[in-house]
Amino acid sequence: MNLNYKSYCEKMRKIADLNFASAVLGWDQEVYMPVGSSDARAQQLGTLAGIAHELFTAPELGELLSLLEKDESLSPEEKLNIKKSSKDYKDKKKYTNEFVIELSRCTSEAFQAWDYARKNNDYNHFAPSLQKLIVLKQKETELLGYTSHPYDALLDQFEPGMTTVKLEKLFSEVKSALVPFVKEIVAKKPVDDSFLKQNYDSDKQWNFGIELLKNMNFDFNIGRQDISSHPFTTSFSSKDVRVTTRINVNDLREMIWSCIHEGGHALYEQGLPESQYGLPWGEASSLAVHESQSRIWENNVGRSLAYWKYHYADLQKIFPENLLNISLELFYKSINKVEPSFIRTAADELTYHFHIMIRYEMEKGIIEGSIPVNEIPKQWNAKYKEYLGIDVPTDALGVLQDIHWSHGGFGYFPTYSLGSFYAAQYFACAKKNIPGLLELIEKGDYKLLLDWLRKNIHVHGRLYTAEELCERITGETLQFKYFFEYAKEKFGNI
Amino acid sequence: MNLNYKSYCEKMRKIADLNFASAVLGWDQEVYMPVGSSDARAQQLGTLAGIAHELFTAPELGELLSLLEKDESLSPEEKLNIKKSSKDYKDKKKYTNEFVIELSRCTSEAFQAWDYARKNNDYNHFAPSLQKLIVLKQKETELLGYTSHPYDALLDQFEPGMTTVKLEKLFSEVKSALVPFVKEIVAKKPVDDSFLKQNYDSDKQWNFGIELLKNMNFDFNIGRQDISSHPFTTSFSSKDVRVTTRINVNDLREMIWSCIHEGGHALYEQGLPESQYGLPWGEASSLAVHESQSRIWENNVGRSLAYWKYHYADLQKIFPENLLNISLELFYKSINKVEPSFIRTAADELTYHFHIMIRYEMEKGIIEGSIPVNEIPKQWNAKYKEYLGIDVPTDALGVLQDIHWSHGGFGYFPTYSLGSFYAAQYFACAKKNIPGLLELIEKGDYKLLLDWLRKNIHVHGRLYTAEELCERITGETLQFKYFFEYAKEKFGNI
Repeated sequence: MNLNYKSYCEKMRKIADLNFASAVLGWDQEVYMPVGSSDARAQQLGTLAGIAHELFTAPELGELLSLLEKDESLSPEEKLNIKKSSKDYKDKKKYTNEFVIELSRCTSEAFQAWDYARKNNDYNHFAPSLQKLIVLKQKETELLGYTSHPYDALLDQFEPGMTTVKLEKLFSEVKSALVPFVKEIVAKKPVDDSFLKQNYDSDKQWNFGIELLKNMNFDFNIGRQDISSHPFTTSFSSKDVRVTTRINVNDLREMIWSCIHEGGHALYEQGLPESQYGLPWGEASSLAVHESQSRIWENNVGRSLAYWKYHYADLQKIFPENLLNISLELFYKSINKVEPSFIRTAADELTYHFHIMIRYEMEKGIIEGSIPVNEIPKQWNAKYKEYLGIDVPTDALGVLQDIHWSHGGFGYFPTYSLGSFYAAQYFACAKKNIPGLLELIEKGDYKLLLDWLRKNIHVHGRLYTAEELCERITGETLQFKYFFEYAKEKFGNI
Repeated sequence: MNLNYKSYCEKMRKIADLNFASAVLGWDQEVYMPVGSSDARAQQLGTLAGIAHELFTAPELGELLSLLEKDESLSPEEKLNIKKSSKDYKDKKKYTNEFVIELSRCTSEAFQAWDYARKNNDYNHFAPSLQKLIVLKQKETELLGYTSHPYDALLDQFEPGMTTVKLEKLFSEVKSALVPFVKEIVAKKPVDDSFLKQNYDSDKQWNFGIELLKNMNFDFNIGRQDISSHPFTTSFSSKDVRVTTRINVNDLREMIWSCIHEGGHALYEQGLPESQYGLPWGEASSLAVHESQSRIWENNVGRSLAYWKYHYADLQKIFPENLLNISLELFYKSINKVEPSFIRTAADELTYHFHIMIRYEMEKGIIEGSIPVNEIPKQWNAKYKEYLGIDVPTDALGVLQDIHWSHGGFGYFPTYSLGSFYAAQYFACAKKNIPGLLELIEKGDYKLLLDWLRKNIHVHGRLYTAEELCERITGETLQFKYFFEYAKEKFGNI
C-alpha cells in the first residue's frame, strides 16, 4: 500500500477513535449517566473534542493531504476519500481558535438560557443569547465563504451542495401542492384515533419494539436499544450501533415509530463498510441521506398498509384489551391521521414539512438579517397561522420547542424534509427495481429492500453526496413529485 | 495561584479526562456493549491510553514537575501532589516504548490463550504465553529497579511501599495462626446453609440490593448500579461512580455481598475530593486501601450479627417462602460458614487468605525464577492440599481460575489480604472512636461510620500511602492481630 495513504489512514483512524469515544460518553450521558454527574462529563467531552480537533488540523495532515491530492497511483475510491478529507480539512482550518472557543462558550450559555426559557415560557430570557449566537453564525458564514446567500455556507456544513436556491424551488412546490392538499384532507371528517391514546403497558411496548427491530434486520449482535428522553441513534463503529426509544404508556405511537425511525438510521450505520473505519467512505453521506434511511422505514414502509397487514395481528395479541375490536383499516387510518399541530416532533408525515418550511424561512431571514431577534416569535406564529391554520398558544409550544438553535444548529432543519423527499424517490425506485416489494412487505420480509439500500446507498458511505447518490440510483436529481405522488396515492385513499 | 502549579493541574486534568473517558468505554464494554463490537472498542481504548501516556511522559511535564519539586511556596498538600506525580512520572519514564508495546501485545495474546485454556481445562495451551509474560515481567522488575527482591518492584506498582519482607512476616502469621484456627472450625459439625441455595427471584434480589446501597449512603444522584458478569466498581469522577453486581437466582449470597463490597469501594470513590480531580489527592491511596473500604463494609459490617439484626426482617418479608422459618441465628451462622473450597472469589472470609497466600508464594517463586512454568500447576495443587486440605480436581478450578496473570497483574493479589487486614484494624479503631457503633449498626445507621471513614481516609485521597494512613489513624503499622482477634471473636462464637 501507498505509504502516504497508509499514514493518512492511521491519522484518520486515531481521530475517529477519539470521536467515537466521545460518542460513547455522549450516549451514556443521555441514557445512563446519573443526574449529578454532568460537570465532569462536559469537561471530558471538551478535552476529547479538543484533541481530535488538534489532530485533524495539524499541519502534517494538511501536507499529507496535499501530496495525496496529486497522487495518481490511488484507486478511484481512495481519491474520493482524499478529496472529502481535504475539503473537511480546509473547512476546519477556516475556523480561528478564537471563534471556536467563543462559539462553544456561547452555545453552552444559550442552551441553559433556552432550557429555562422553554420551561418558563419566557422567550425574552433566551433572546439575548440567541442574538449573540446569530451574530456568531453570521460571522461563521463569512469565515466559511459562500457565493450567493450566506445561509448556503451553513447549509453546506450539514448537507454538502445544498443551497438556498434549491430549497426555494423545493419549498415553493411544498407550498403550492402540499398546503392545499392538506387543507382538503383536514376538511374531511376526522378519524377517531382515541384508542391509540389508551393505556399501553410499558414492558409489552418495549418487547414489541424489539421484535420490530429484529424483523427489520437490525443486528443486535452489533447493536442494542435503550431508553432515553429523546430517541436517537449513535454509533461507535459500524459494528456497534445504538438506538434509543421512548415509551409513552398513554400513546402507543411514540414507541413504535421512534423504533422504526431510529432502526432505519441504525441499518444505515450497520451497513457502512467496516474496513473504512475513520475514513469518509466509512461515514454516512449526509444528514439528508441519513434521514432518508430513517424515513423510508418509518413512513414508506412502517406507516404502510402492507407493513401492518403483517404486524397488526401480533400487536392485537399483545394488547387485546385495546385493539381486539379495532379493525386493521381503522388502525391504518388512525396512524396516518393528518392534523395540523404545534409540535414538529409529533406531526404527521404531511404537515411535518410545513414545520420545516417555517423553520427554513425563519433561519434564512435570521441569517440574512431581515428578521430581528425580537420579531422571531411574531413571524413564527404568523407562519403557523398561514401554513397550518393554527394559533400558536405560547412560545414554549412555538418558537422555543426545538433545541437546535440553542446548539447553534442553523441550517440543520431542511435536512429533515430533504430526507423524506429522498425517501419517497428511493421507495418509488425500489418498487420498480424489486419485483413484488409490497407483497414481500406484507409477509414481513424486508431482506430484499435492505439489500437494495445496502447495495445502492450504505456501502458507498460518504463517497458520493446526497445529490450524486440520487442521480446514480434514480437517474434524476431530487424531485418533490415523488413525495407528492406518494402522498396523493396514500392519503387520497384514506 | 502559582502559575507553574496551575499549569501542572491543567495538564493532569487533561490526562484524567482521557483516562476517565477510557473508564467509561471500559464500563460500557463490561455492562452493555454488544458481543460483536469488541474489535473497534479495543482499538479505541488503545488510542486513548496511548494519548494519555504521551501526555503524561511529555518532557514539558517532567520539567514542570522538576521546577515544582523545588518550589517552597506550595502548600503541604500541593507539595504532596507534586511528590506523587513526580514519582509516577519517573516510574512511567522507566518503561521504554518498545517494552510497553511488547507487553500490550503479549497480554492481549495471553488473555485469549488463558480464556481458551480455562474453558477447555488445558493449562498447556496457556503455558507458552504465560512463559513470555513472565520473562517480560522479570524484565519489568529490572526496568523499575528494586533493592532486595525483584517481586518488590511489581508489588510497589500496586501497593506503594509494600515489600516481600513485610508480606513474609504477615503471611507467616496467617500460616501459624489462621491455618490451625480454620482446621478447628472445620472439624466442627457444619451448619446446614442449603436454604441460601434455593430459588430467589432475580428482580426481588435486585431491589433488595439497591436498598442496601441506599442504606449504606451510596449516593445514587452521582452513581448507579448495573449488572455485569463480574462485579466491579469504576468511576468517571468522584461525582460519577458506577458499581455492578451479579445475581444468581440459586444463591442469595452473590448479589448481597457483591453489592455491599462494591458499595464500599464506591463510597470511597464518592468521598474523594472533587476539587482534586486528576491530581493524586483526588485519587485512591492504593489498592489495599481501596480493598479495606470494600472489606470493612462487606465483612466487618455486612457479615455481622448487628447488621442483620436490622436487615434480616426485610429480607424475610421479601422471600417469605425461603426464609420465614429460618431464624436470624441460623441465617447469621450460614452466611459465615467456613469451608475450604477451590475458588477464591467464592471463599469465606477466613479461607480467603489461604487463596491469597498461595498466589503470593507462587508469584514470588515465579518472578524470582524458582518455579518454572511447567511446575506451576503441580505446586499450586500441593499448596491447596497443604493449606486448605483439598485436592484440586482440575486446572480450570485451580491455577487457571483467575484472570490476573493473563493481564500481567503479578503483585496484585496480596492487596486483597492487606485490604482485609487493614479493614479489621480500622474497624477495631472505629469501634473505639465511635461510641455505640454496634448499636448504630443494629439500627441500620451507618452515618457516623461513614463520616469516620470519610474524615480519616477518603478526604486524603492519595496524599498518604496505606502505611502512613494506618499509622495516622490507628497509631500503629498494620498488625495481623486485629484481623485474628476479630476472627476469633466472631467465629469462636459461631
